[in-house]
Amino acid sequence: MAKKNEEFVTHITSRDEDFSRWYTDVIMQTDLVDYSDVKGCMVIKPYGYAIWELIQKEMDTRFKATGHKNAYFPLLIPESLLKKEAEHIEGFAPEVAWVTQGGNETLTERLAIRPTSETIICSMYAKWVQSYRDLPLLYNQWCNVLRWEKSTRPFLRTSEFLWQEGHTIHATKEEAEEETMRMLEVYREFSYNVLAIPVITGQKSEKEKFAGAENTYSMEALMQDGKALQMGTSHFLGQHFAKVYDIKFLDKDGQLKYVYQTSWGTSTRMIGGIIMVHGDERGLMLPPKIAPIQVMILPIAMHKEGVLEKANELLKTLKAKGLRVEMDDRDTVSAGFKFNECELKGIPVRIEIGPRDIEKGVCVVVRRDILEKQTIALSDIAGEIEKILEQVHEGMLKRATELRDGKTFEARTFEEFKDAIENKKGFVKAMWCGDTECELAIKEKTGATTRNMPFIQEHLSDVCVHCGKPAKKMAYFARAY
Amino acid sequence: MAKKNEEFVTHITSRDEDFSRWYTDVIMQTDLVDYSDVKGCMVIKPYGYAIWELIQKEMDTRFKATGHKNAYFPLLIPESLLKKEAEHIEGFAPEVAWVTQGGNETLTERLAIRPTSETIICSMYAKWVQSYRDLPLLYNQWCNVLRWEKSTRPFLRTSEFLWQEGHTIHATKEEAEEETMRMLEVYREFSYNVLAIPVITGQKSEKEKFAGAENTYSMEALMQDGKALQMGTSHFLGQHFAKVYDIKFLDKDGQLKYVYQTSWGTSTRMIGGIIMVHGDERGLMLPPKIAPIQVMILPIAMHKEGVLEKANELLKTLKAKGLRVEMDDRDTVSAGFKFNECELKGIPVRIEIGPRDIEKGVCVVVRRDILEKQTIALSDIAGEIEKILEQVHEGMLKRATELRDGKTFEARTFEEFKDAIENKKGFVKAMWCGDTECELAIKEKTGATTRNMPFIQEHLSDVCVHCGKPAKKMAYFARAY
Repeated sequence: MAKKNEEFVTHITSRDEDFSRWYTDVIMQTDLVDYSDVKGCMVIKPYGYAIWELIQKEMDTRFKATGHKNAYFPLLIPESLLKKEAEHIEGFAPEVAWVTQGGNETLTERLAIRPTSETIICSMYAKWVQSYRDLPLLYNQWCNVLRWEKSTRPFLRTSEFLWQEGHTIHATKEEAEEETMRMLEVYREFSYNVLAIPVITGQKSEKEKFAGAENTYSMEALMQDGKALQMGTSHFLGQHFAKVYDIKFLDKDGQLKYVYQTSWGTSTRMIGGIIMVHGDERGLMLPPKIAPIQVMILPIAMHKEGVLEKANELLKTLKAKGLRVEMDDRDTVSAGFKFNECELKGIPVRIEIGPRDIEKGVCVVVRRDILEKQTIALSDIAGEIEKILEQVHEGMLKRATELRDGKTFEARTFEEFKDAIENKKGFVKAMWCGDTECELAIKEKTGATTRNMPFIQEHLSDVCVHCGKPAKKMAYFARAY
Repeated sequence: MAKKNEEFVTHITSRDEDFSRWYTDVIMQTDLVDYSDVKGCMVIKPYGYAIWELIQKEMDTRFKATGHKNAYFPLLIPESLLKKEAEHIEGFAPEVAWVTQGGNETLTERLAIRPTSETIICSMYAKWVQSYRDLPLLYNQWCNVLRWEKSTRPFLRTSEFLWQEGHTIHATKEEAEEETMRMLEVYREFSYNVLAIPVITGQKSEKEKFAGAENTYSMEALMQDGKALQMGTSHFLGQHFAKVYDIKFLDKDGQLKYVYQTSWGTSTRMIGGIIMVHGDERGLMLPPKIAPIQVMILPIAMHKEGVLEKANELLKTLKAKGLRVEMDDRDTVSAGFKFNECELKGIPVRIEIGPRDIEKGVCVVVRRDILEKQTIALSDIAGEIEKILEQVHEGMLKRATELRDGKTFEARTFEEFKDAIENKKGFVKAMWCGDTECELAIKEKTGATTRNMPFIQEHLSDVCVHCGKPAKKMAYFARAY
């Protein structure tokens, strides 16, 4: 049995020393994931999966509230079906894993494991839609997808990952465009109100857009190391897929028309974003809305009469309020060990309750984000804890916003641009000509890519920060995950 | 636009004429599933998927209440890992789909798409367990699996299907055996109380047990055509996998020991069972607990003043009570059309409300299971509907139990046995010697297999119904899906 004064030992590299190792240390030591025997495929352990379940629940409620229904489409896509849309297959071909044998037979046609499901869903939509009365179809699916990646990192880039993909078809362009924006807004609101992560929303460049889309919109977050993470995308597909997969409907005016289409997705990658936006030297810091354990109760001097009883009472009270609360009453480790563990695991609030507290009818509440203690009366503890969790969320969002704003730079010259990307590190706002060649040259020289052209535009100058040609848009640039 | 008196047309083959066609007609006309472009893979449409979501919710609550946590393991399993346990790979090899190419590269080792996840989970458990303090591990995963099937039918047998698979490891044999039985009991209770399907629980024969298990236990239901459906299995794996995958722990006594293991699973196949146990000539009949729409409100003479208002009020009242309720206020189809559609879709309760009802402060409630009308006062409608839904559940379970009991036969001679399987059709209880050869001969002669050896044993005779050797157990036999 462990000795009571067992030392709490973690090996978390400092963020300043090596951010990438810090990330790996945190995810491994908090038991979020593990590496599997298959290259690039991760195991999501219970603590990590519980975060995903909470993300799913929050998102799914939003999808259903905006009229979407869940469905499930096959994992495997015949090669001929996948190849119909030329841009799409060109974009995805290098990343596809192919099934060539079923049982003891060699297949006559290779089957792709879905890297995304536009093609198979289009083939079904073509069967299901006849008249304008069948439209819109607003479907979403929660599933696994596979993209054969050369270099992987848990949550951020893995060969297999879990996600949701929405696929909708509409009678008119306007409706489809509205849907594209509606779902981007659902993502944005979710990121602020659930993940406590501020994001920049805007349009992707031609080069960075989804293979087969007319326009792609994204939300982009900034990590503590100054690199950007694309947290979600919403695509207006126009009639690209509809024409190739022949999704036609008889409109009110008696004409056969092609539908307009959208798709939109977010994935377990967001968990990587949560870690890299909020985490610190002590470990994880989880936003209360998706924390599997929101409150940990730590009875102090447990052997003293009445302490465990009172702590149990507190546990019941908070559970009854619908909070995700646990109690750590192990007698094999010290209180200090437990404090550290709560911090490592990013539990938003811990409550310490000992004999002296009980005498006074109070307990001590410690917020994970600011690590400050406050004494709270037990009489209205549930209501107070709810308020404090709200404060933790607000505090985390505020800090993340300050972090992002402090690392967002404007560049009017390419010297400023390079300095911001290479030395200051962060988002760089700059005017851009809109040409793919220029974008590629910037990437070649600095490693930075366009993240998006934000909806909120500023006029920093008349000319492109790189090539000096007339500027079309202001874009956010950054090195990105 | 459709004419108001549009005729309600379904093409459901009679069950007596062709049960298999009846099944296909029902699932296609109620929009539960569709066939995809990939052989043996189905698309689960929103109405079918909503049933699966409700099943998941009910089951997941039960898993968590019994101490289990969800996790996620990779889709792909290296061939060498899958092949370690000899019996296991022998059982699954003919059903495995193999990935041989990733992007443009040919893989050096084939990767199996998981047919089940014992092997990959064992390889992780071996890393995660050191001491008795790490045990038990009680994990479950919700995912897709793939088994290359030659002959498929939606829900009942498809190449890809959705399921949950629980995998637990324990320090002692007793604990693992208890867990095996606990989860079988969770399944049994779920089948009765959620699906309204009575089942026989018992032990599988050597031949029918899971590849690699020491013992397999199952729950078996009887369909209306007299064929059995295995609805869920729970396996005691002993130390078979632990020894092969080297899952050892340091016990309290300082000895290194192998763990004992269980696994258990249920799948979308259960939806096939719901259809074939409860459905009738009018279509689906869904048990209230997993019906996506529990109550459909049909306003009658909608153009009359106050009808829609009152119907909307009713909708709100029932929603507030947490019921899954919708209103059909289309004016493009007749009330009769809507009645028929409610019945086709298996909605447990429909409420008709028209001007005369409103005058009297009542509405008309029609149960899907017995199709009887009753007049209910609007004053306490929510409470009454809850009671009626409970009655529908009880009524469906009672009818399903009578159906099963009416089709369960005892056989003391092989003549009786053949007559029961071939002419009467149903479950046959018979004494059995326990030999695999005898079991195979019975299958060869009658098409019937052992379903399980029930926990509740009866002594029908001293000798095996087929070979006349001394009987070991009474078994349930049937032709099965």
